[in-house]
Amino acid sequence: MANRIITISREFGSGGRTVGKMTAEKLGIHCYDNELLEKIAEESGLAKEYIAERGEYTPRGGWLATAFADRSVNGLSVQDYLWTVQRKLILELAEQESCVIVGRCADYILDGKADLLKVFVYASMEKRAERIVKLYGETSETPEKRLKDKDKRRAAYYQFYTDMEWGKAQHYHIAVDSGTLGIDRCVDIIASLY
Amino acid sequence: MANRIITISREFGSGGRTVGKMTAEKLGIHCYDNELLEKIAEESGLAKEYIAERGEYTPRGGWLATAFADRSVNGLSVQDYLWTVQRKLILELAEQESCVIVGRCADYILDGKADLLKVFVYASMEKRAERIVKLYGETSETPEKRLKDKDKRRAAYYQFYTDMEWGKAQHYHIAVDSGTLGIDRCVDIIASLY
Repeated sequence: MANRIITISREFGSGGRTVGKMTAEKLGIHCYDNELLEKIAEESGLAKEYIAERGEYTPRGGWLATAFADRSVNGLSVQDYLWTVQRKLILELAEQESCVIVGRCADYILDGKADLLKVFVYASMEKRAERIVKLYGETSETPEKRLKDKDKRRAAYYQFYTDMEWGKAQHYHIAVDSGTLGIDRCVDIIASLY
Repeated sequence: MANRIITISREFGSGGRTVGKMTAEKLGIHCYDNELLEKIAEESGLAKEYIAERGEYTPRGGWLATAFADRSVNGLSVQDYLWTVQRKLILELAEQESCVIVGRCADYILDGKADLLKVFVYASMEKRAERIVKLYGETSETPEKRLKDKDKRRAAYYQFYTDMEWGKAQHYHIAVDSGTLGIDRCVDIIASLY
């Protein structure tokens, strides 16, 4: 496979998605984030909102909370069905073109199957809190609580499907603190490694 | 404090020490690695070999194995005495000059006390095994076993004195896989961030 794929794993609120988009623009390749969501929605028949939430996070209350509530598709839980569709589409994308893929365990799914640059983007709690309030506004929950909840559920999702610890430097080729280095510098570094 | 300090935390065999030395050369600043060892030896009166081993690693067999065997200095265990000397010297260095400091929990010791760029250098088991055999030769233990032992004891040391998890991306401003990116590229990236 000659395509070169950048996978961006990111902490919620770190600006990793923006880093992915800007890097792709700089390199003249596609960034699959929202577009990937749409492809998954089309292929799976599931709602985009459901996929956005359940394609990267364990449900609030943990897996058990929905184990019996979820309907099944072809004998799989909806969650596992979504995983198989995501996985298939990500593998297809990597066959088709060089691109940036944000999130969705693409680093794990493509490991050993494509020419990968695996990136992790993170930032301090303070910087992320600042960012999510600016982007998504205030809610009744403090930004710290929202971030902790997201972190926990994303890590649990990753662990469940990949059996690896999320956010451990050693899983990635490079890991960058976007809060300290700034988005632009992260983009420059990643693009220079491509 | 106007000095800018780069701390390099590194996995054994990753070439992190070389990355530190080359980055310092490129920036025209000092790299404290062996020189720091010598300073600690002079200040503490302990042997360099002892410091190299016990200033970053828990003893083989864990802390308990030596808790009673170690003599004490001023009422501290030798291990704790060494830690206080290391800590003092690292803080002094940061006051004196901009520099690169390799290992010895300098990232933790200087956090919030200096203008820091905290770097973590790591590589896959295969790449590190290759490197240590080339550098230090074969021994009766497999390189993988030597690396696992070093990793475990370094992580335990770090955890004991800093109460943080060693090698977690979020502790650093940037983390680089020297095995994939190559030493030169790591040096370029770090120097560009300085």
